[in-house]
Amino acid sequence: MVKAVPQLEYLFNPSSIALVGASRQPIKWGSIVLGNIIKGGYKGKVYPINPKAEKIQDLKCYPNVKKIPAEVDLSIIAAPAVDVRISEIIEDCAEKNVKAAIVISSGFGETGEKGKRAEEELVSSARKANIRFVGPNSMGIFSASANLHALMPTVRPLKGDVSFVSQSGNLGVQTLDRGVQLGVGFNLFVSSGNEADLHCEDYINYFRQDPETKIILSYIEGLKDGVGFMDVARETTKKKPIIAFKAGETEAGASAALSHTGSLTGSSRIYDSVFKQVGVIKAENTEDMLDFALAFKQPLPKGRKVAILTRGGGWGVVTADACDKAGIELPKIPKEIFEELDKVLPLYWSKNNPIDSVALINPYAHIDILKIIKKWKDVDGLIILGGLDEFYSSFLTKIGVDDSIVKLQEELLEEYIKEMIEIAEDWGKPVFAVVVTLLDKSRGVQLLNEHNIPVYYSPERAVKAFSKLIEWKEYLKKFQNSSDKIF
Amino acid sequence: MVKAVPQLEYLFNPSSIALVGASRQPIKWGSIVLGNIIKGGYKGKVYPINPKAEKIQDLKCYPNVKKIPAEVDLSIIAAPAVDVRISEIIEDCAEKNVKAAIVISSGFGETGEKGKRAEEELVSSARKANIRFVGPNSMGIFSASANLHALMPTVRPLKGDVSFVSQSGNLGVQTLDRGVQLGVGFNLFVSSGNEADLHCEDYINYFRQDPETKIILSYIEGLKDGVGFMDVARETTKKKPIIAFKAGETEAGASAALSHTGSLTGSSRIYDSVFKQVGVIKAENTEDMLDFALAFKQPLPKGRKVAILTRGGGWGVVTADACDKAGIELPKIPKEIFEELDKVLPLYWSKNNPIDSVALINPYAHIDILKIIKKWKDVDGLIILGGLDEFYSSFLTKIGVDDSIVKLQEELLEEYIKEMIEIAEDWGKPVFAVVVTLLDKSRGVQLLNEHNIPVYYSPERAVKAFSKLIEWKEYLKKFQNSSDKIF
Repeated sequence: MVKAVPQLEYLFNPSSIALVGASRQPIKWGSIVLGNIIKGGYKGKVYPINPKAEKIQDLKCYPNVKKIPAEVDLSIIAAPAVDVRISEIIEDCAEKNVKAAIVISSGFGETGEKGKRAEEELVSSARKANIRFVGPNSMGIFSASANLHALMPTVRPLKGDVSFVSQSGNLGVQTLDRGVQLGVGFNLFVSSGNEADLHCEDYINYFRQDPETKIILSYIEGLKDGVGFMDVARETTKKKPIIAFKAGETEAGASAALSHTGSLTGSSRIYDSVFKQVGVIKAENTEDMLDFALAFKQPLPKGRKVAILTRGGGWGVVTADACDKAGIELPKIPKEIFEELDKVLPLYWSKNNPIDSVALINPYAHIDILKIIKKWKDVDGLIILGGLDEFYSSFLTKIGVDDSIVKLQEELLEEYIKEMIEIAEDWGKPVFAVVVTLLDKSRGVQLLNEHNIPVYYSPERAVKAFSKLIEWKEYLKKFQNSSDKIF
Repeated sequence: MVKAVPQLEYLFNPSSIALVGASRQPIKWGSIVLGNIIKGGYKGKVYPINPKAEKIQDLKCYPNVKKIPAEVDLSIIAAPAVDVRISEIIEDCAEKNVKAAIVISSGFGETGEKGKRAEEELVSSARKANIRFVGPNSMGIFSASANLHALMPTVRPLKGDVSFVSQSGNLGVQTLDRGVQLGVGFNLFVSSGNEADLHCEDYINYFRQDPETKIILSYIEGLKDGVGFMDVARETTKKKPIIAFKAGETEAGASAALSHTGSLTGSSRIYDSVFKQVGVIKAENTEDMLDFALAFKQPLPKGRKVAILTRGGGWGVVTADACDKAGIELPKIPKEIFEELDKVLPLYWSKNNPIDSVALINPYAHIDILKIIKKWKDVDGLIILGGLDEFYSSFLTKIGVDDSIVKLQEELLEEYIKEMIEIAEDWGKPVFAVVVTLLDKSRGVQLLNEHNIPVYYSPERAVKAFSKLIEWKEYLKKFQNSSDKIF
């Protein structure tokens, strides 16, 4: 088993940071990362290192790490590798008893033979100093508890319970940004760069034991220690889901990955089989990553039976198709539920699951429908399509209906959403919502986000993500039944 | 071959409309559709029909269609089928020499035997009167040239060159709404409902001859006249692309479709083969529909060779993977282009296609890169990843950089985007853009939208859509080579 790395505590929760390569020029990474840390609200001490400056961004500068008159937990190295020898900086850090480092500088293993030798030198200096480091060629880290935005771009992630290790910096930080829009909050993030020292599995191992992390996300181009990854993943997925996206699957992708992080990527089939064995949930595309992370905010379903409530027949058909393809069952509506629904639904409702309310515009009735569905015991989850944005209110405003009616509609929408949240919480079963108007961040969607009910922008995505809850649930069952014998 | 329907001219460009079932109550469809038409800016005459009202929404009411003291081209029937006999209304319309009708009322074929008989009666009345009608169970139509929003929901579609027939009303109108957000404009839209009279292929046949329609979109649950559809599609795809989504593919979906529009759906394999034969582009999920429609705003590529420009290595890897899977080639960079790129790119750029500018933050250089790529003759298209939102400006604002620098960055972004547009227009080759921050509608994205450069929210989607341009181009070639003999 991969050993825990105590230095990671200093990486994610440092009391003090030295920023080597801090710059006075506004459009230099050394300046942007520093600004990011300060503006991001980090509460610890920050020491910019620059031999030619007195002060940068109102902070006193030091010519090198050794001259800092206090303890330093973490060094962030943003100096260009062409200008300075990074391994020399590490030696300075060693003298200062620095615990961990982030090497943002690039120009190492990803660039060829010469870079590889520089990378080896870097690793050997760090080993001697007992310093563990992220990168090189990293875009930094984020830590919610430390309020630390040690990142190249000025992303402000939503705080939450997803921890994420990404072998691509850009893809990583932009996923954080997208999370803000989709309601996915992060606890820890690390752009692991070339992984010369710390590997993907070291971070996952840390996330596994971190009480603030509930869901683990990983973007992988290649694994330097496949067996180590398997061990850590197997141990982790007993308790927490790991969602992994594997890039560089094709020849063209693998060749791009080699010049990106210098990693040798394996065949897609090998990864598929490894992920399956150790219970890792595979994201098939970049959008799946956050779609699946959202899903795991909900409880796991007991089985494969789902009820669908839709405002429009077409969406019901599409969702039923998607369920069928994903092996999700749509059970018949039991007699007692049917009879109650039949009383509140219009004459020509679907009389079947998906429950199609056939463009019914009485919002009171929709609240009643949810109350009835709540009594349906023999389903394992619910997918609700439509009616979550300002369907009623903005709609009526547009056609010039009286304000008091519009206001009533808004209140009813809120009541409807609250009923949804109550079902989710009472039931202990997963409830998913779908809005098809892509960019709508209505009050309803916000409320659902706040209550951890995932909102998707297409029914197919909701169903795919739902099926991942089932997948992991079934892995857990299989695992518990056969104990350790599944391998 | 399916015959052209002259009445469709009156449907999409009526001089006057009777709205049967107009209501004074604000939350009735008869009232909402009327409000929608008026507020939507329709320039023709509108006559509300309601025997119990004098005026509705400031318009004089008539007790029935016959009493209207002027010509009526189109009748919209929103009266509930339980309250009135719709076929009687049609008989009134016949006396008035009405040309076309939209039957919004539901409760027909989709509800069982009794409804089927009512539907047959409706068809027979209309046949006698030489009236062609949409529906029943339709959510209405939209016509850009007539400025006609005869729709149940208050959607305000973007005007453009896509025409869309949808067998689901809800899915249809919400796709229009999504189009506003994605920059897909519509010329004509019809929610075809149960298709008791006018079929999907009748509308497509009209779109084929409509000079304002460049791209045709269709949501299909089932085809009542498969051969007719094939004939029309085959004729249409010689000139215009048809993008079709087929729902109700699985048993669960087919059962939901039956209670939705009463259509018997065929097996997925049959549709796949039909679509392929007649050159119809298959949308595999609901998001594909607009993704593909966006793609066809660009010229068709001559071949399968694509250049990729990325700000981040990870996105490059993902895009290369997606291209490989879609059969899109990433040719090597020719020597003369390579040498020029090498001068403006940072030391450690990817030196390969995808061209990874390795987080380069000099915006001048990005403009230069585009100018160099413009000289690359031996590629058939370009996909640009990142750098289209306020990467520079909002970024620098956040870290507190001086306003004048921020303003400069904004100007440079605009210059960069304009270079992109110029390449697209000079080259005559398709250029696609990808922004990965889902909800960002930056000035850059708007500019690209205005210039018909499709912007996607994930590289996988961009590549999938790009591959559809290739697919249709190859169909056209095959078709042209073998003339009519391909079947």
